[in-house]
Amino acid sequence: MNIDSVDFFYLSIPQVQNIGDGSQDCLLVRIRAGQYTGWGECEASPLVSIANLVCPMSHSACRSPLDAVLSHSIESPADIHAINHRVREIGLDIAQTGHTLSGIDIALWDLLGHRQGRPIYDLLGYSKSHPKRPYASQLFGDNPQQTLEKGRSMRQAGFTAVKFGWGPFGRDLKSDRDHLAAAREGVGPDLELLIDAGTVWVDDVSLAAQRIEQLEAINAGWLEEPFVGTAVHAYGKLAARNSTVPLAGGEGASHPDLARQLIDFGGIKVVQIDTGRIGGITPAKTIADYARAKSIRYVNHTFTTHLALAASIAPYAGMSEFDLCEYPVEASELATHLTINRLSRDQNGLVHLPDTPGLGLTPDPAIIKKFLKNVEIRVDGKTIYSTPTI
Amino acid sequence: MNIDSVDFFYLSIPQVQNIGDGSQDCLLVRIRAGQYTGWGECEASPLVSIANLVCPMSHSACRSPLDAVLSHSIESPADIHAINHRVREIGLDIAQTGHTLSGIDIALWDLLGHRQGRPIYDLLGYSKSHPKRPYASQLFGDNPQQTLEKGRSMRQAGFTAVKFGWGPFGRDLKSDRDHLAAAREGVGPDLELLIDAGTVWVDDVSLAAQRIEQLEAINAGWLEEPFVGTAVHAYGKLAARNSTVPLAGGEGASHPDLARQLIDFGGIKVVQIDTGRIGGITPAKTIADYARAKSIRYVNHTFTTHLALAASIAPYAGMSEFDLCEYPVEASELATHLTINRLSRDQNGLVHLPDTPGLGLTPDPAIIKKFLKNVEIRVDGKTIYSTPTI
Repeated sequence: MNIDSVDFFYLSIPQVQNIGDGSQDCLLVRIRAGQYTGWGECEASPLVSIANLVCPMSHSACRSPLDAVLSHSIESPADIHAINHRVREIGLDIAQTGHTLSGIDIALWDLLGHRQGRPIYDLLGYSKSHPKRPYASQLFGDNPQQTLEKGRSMRQAGFTAVKFGWGPFGRDLKSDRDHLAAAREGVGPDLELLIDAGTVWVDDVSLAAQRIEQLEAINAGWLEEPFVGTAVHAYGKLAARNSTVPLAGGEGASHPDLARQLIDFGGIKVVQIDTGRIGGITPAKTIADYARAKSIRYVNHTFTTHLALAASIAPYAGMSEFDLCEYPVEASELATHLTINRLSRDQNGLVHLPDTPGLGLTPDPAIIKKFLKNVEIRVDGKTIYSTPTI
Repeated sequence: MNIDSVDFFYLSIPQVQNIGDGSQDCLLVRIRAGQYTGWGECEASPLVSIANLVCPMSHSACRSPLDAVLSHSIESPADIHAINHRVREIGLDIAQTGHTLSGIDIALWDLLGHRQGRPIYDLLGYSKSHPKRPYASQLFGDNPQQTLEKGRSMRQAGFTAVKFGWGPFGRDLKSDRDHLAAAREGVGPDLELLIDAGTVWVDDVSLAAQRIEQLEAINAGWLEEPFVGTAVHAYGKLAARNSTVPLAGGEGASHPDLARQLIDFGGIKVVQIDTGRIGGITPAKTIADYARAKSIRYVNHTFTTHLALAASIAPYAGMSEFDLCEYPVEASELATHLTINRLSRDQNGLVHLPDTPGLGLTPDPAIIKKFLKNVEIRVDGKTIYSTPTI
């Protein structure tokens, strides 16, 4: 059976706001082979990845992923690995390749799961999918009182771990201390409290180091992304201070090598992978295996839909030692309702992947149509992309 | 004076071939402020960077570079540094950002040079521009005899250093040995002979190691890109073998941190920067300074136009210890004729940057028009990009 079509759909809420909420738009991917359909999702700018999908060849290492996908056979995981390898090869000189590949790779696993009647964790070689303990992932409040209330409401909602990130954090020492104290007060003394600096210090180790004492004082479970994901040297220097607060990072990786470098040379103790950026489930699984071998913690990065959430849990679903998962609690209407079924928490507050084939989640055509953007790209009078029919 | 406009032009030869020749298309950038104009060029897929220029905001760290450029003041190098910083900040989550920024940054330096009546090397703080010794950069022949003839013709053309890369190299040990011997025979025993593996071994250290003896036997000046640019661990392992043939790499870096990691952890002794990918002249200068501090060699990567060539030499123009420059000798008609003036070799075979303001090179409107692709991008019925008037 060969791959017949790859379709990209750009969805967006009507008014995207200039805040750190990545759930405001979405690039949905549909792949068809014979009577089977797989769905995936790319994180990051939809229009840029659409252009990457249809871009004319520049030279032999600067080509669309499509050239490696269409007509390729899809019979086994080995086919997906081969496609992954080939997309990287012909897309070497296009920086966007990893992001564009992500949704394609996820959709291929979903499709293969449907074809074989098996969930993706099974295709990946796991005998079972272990439930994950979700941490509530949200932005800091605009002021400490809001942060406190947000923390309290997540405790009341039954979460055992809560993360605050982005927003006002990282710009003023006193304000940061107040927000951190409010966060701890809000979630209570016993919950796991995680802090996400949202790359605010770029690569400035001293600015990050000034906050370590504050973070230790509230017993933070980790400090996430003090720096941009490429600043491996800065991570390494901060890690060398041996704080009791471990460093977390990796969500920005658009290639598994970039996540690996944060482990090898950046001293992170928690690697966070977004399957919608790193190139999909295939490279995410590579990093999960690597994290296990290096005895560091693996956790998903997801701030968008439950389709993306399921895809991001699959790579480490069978690894019981990695018990935590990021769980978006502030997603937009688009992200919240994209799929007909969702990964709800059970009576113990845990998240289970479906045992049904593929990702086990189905996008809702009505929601897709509601948020769909109509895109057309023409080169020399020829339409090379127009939004496909749903 | 504020920046009025940023225009992208997609140029391409009519029939792009599936070979490793990066000069077949080109993304030209024009920036205007008041009566001044600056030109730049982005390497890699033009359509993808055009989409990045006009993409709607996804969230606060997923925005077009344009939002950081338009209306910004352009009075001094500090303005360009500020724009660079801001583009990275708001474009953090778009993988293409570095490529798109590259042409913008180059055009800003060109514009500032025109405004101040100074060449870019002067704006960068260099008291003078040292001439560079060009190495002839070309693809391996389809067979060893072609490789030999190509080497001979470059010797006859007066080059003192010649590089062969891509093509059939790296796939078969015996064929590689024959090509390498032919290359050495062609250029003669005394010329500097450089070998570019074109990432053919991806991250497989053993495949690369099998060629080290062959490379030592022909006294290769360097082995370039045995692996993809992200495979820092593989570079590090190969470097640890301490061959007399130094490793070169870095052209794929779309962020200065990625080049730095190849130096810090990959053991490269020659760092090769493409200003059209790394984010422009600003980060390229950062890496030139870093290479000097680390006592390794800096050289440009350029396989396209003389506009790109001038931009790629500027960052290390004033560093006399870095005497070599890559010089395309097989570029397409588009790349060869894009600019009215060119960086020709003088009677000693050396390449000089112009002492005129900015890059010192002027694109030819007739050539732009001849190769211009007409692109249109529409979202929900609104045209957000159409090829600007030249």
